[in-house]
Amino acid sequence: MTDATGTVRPIGVLTTPWRTLEACPRNGRQPDPPPLCRARVFAQFVPGLKSLEGFSHLILLYWLDQVREPKLTFVPPFDGEERGVFATRSPARPNPIGVSVVRFEGLEASDTLKVRYLDCVDGTPLLDIKPYLRTTDAEPDASMAWLERHATRRHA
Amino acid sequence: MTDATGTVRPIGVLTTPWRTLEACPRNGRQPDPPPLCRARVFAQFVPGLKSLEGFSHLILLYWLDQVREPKLTFVPPFDGEERGVFATRSPARPNPIGVSVVRFEGLEASDTLKVRYLDCVDGTPLLDIKPYLRTTDAEPDASMAWLERHATRRHA
Repeated sequence: MTDATGTVRPIGVLTTPWRTLEACPRNGRQPDPPPLCRARVFAQFVPGLKSLEGFSHLILLYWLDQVREPKLTFVPPFDGEERGVFATRSPARPNPIGVSVVRFEGLEASDTLKVRYLDCVDGTPLLDIKPYLRTTDAEPDASMAWLERHATRRHA
Repeated sequence: MTDATGTVRPIGVLTTPWRTLEACPRNGRQPDPPPLCRARVFAQFVPGLKSLEGFSHLILLYWLDQVREPKLTFVPPFDGEERGVFATRSPARPNPIGVSVVRFEGLEASDTLKVRYLDCVDGTPLLDIKPYLRTTDAEPDASMAWLERHATRRHA
């Protein structure tokens, strides 16, 4: 699809405590304690959840459907210098796909996952669930450039 | 877009050594040493790269456009039991979006990033670049369920 477009469709929906963009935390680790959220998968996709038990963390992809026009550069409210959108986690991106590493606390029902560390609006469409693999996804010593001084402290 | 669809468009293209799906490694950490790959961003998106310098790792999202029909369950060739697609990193997913945590080795040109740890086909359309944040994205102690015994050993 170089120069063409692709189509995504929701596989489910996310339930969070935040009803508006303005109410959302800056990231999912900011609330202390992080509230329980839910990812409900539509019936036709439930077979894809097989073998999900035992993963402690997952990667959720979701569609940031509340976001207005993308901004390629902007001044983050907590910073003061102009930054490129690809150096930020701003939701106002050319492709409004959110990525969150969440703690997986098991199934509440055969179609509903209990998760923590989401930061998106209630009702956000879910696009994908992937297992988090520490062998390819964990870089605990990564350096964070201009975001270093704005880092969210990790809770226990 | 609950029950509706969304549209994605490429912001650039990935260059890797692998010309076919069959030639791709199982993941980007498997080749030793991991080859240098490139992410070229189309001209209109280049302003979004501002402030990317200094991040050691990035999250790349890309469109798995070579993949045929999604399979909700399948038997991985290296395993032997039927698994749900959401418990795997298989590219044959309902929304064929790939996620890779890559090492960022700087800009080769104003529109071209040098990266390592990609595992996708040469020419794969790039959808997004996000800074990797160890504070929200690193879970070095995550448990990997059925994938534990198939883990890729990390190189130095």
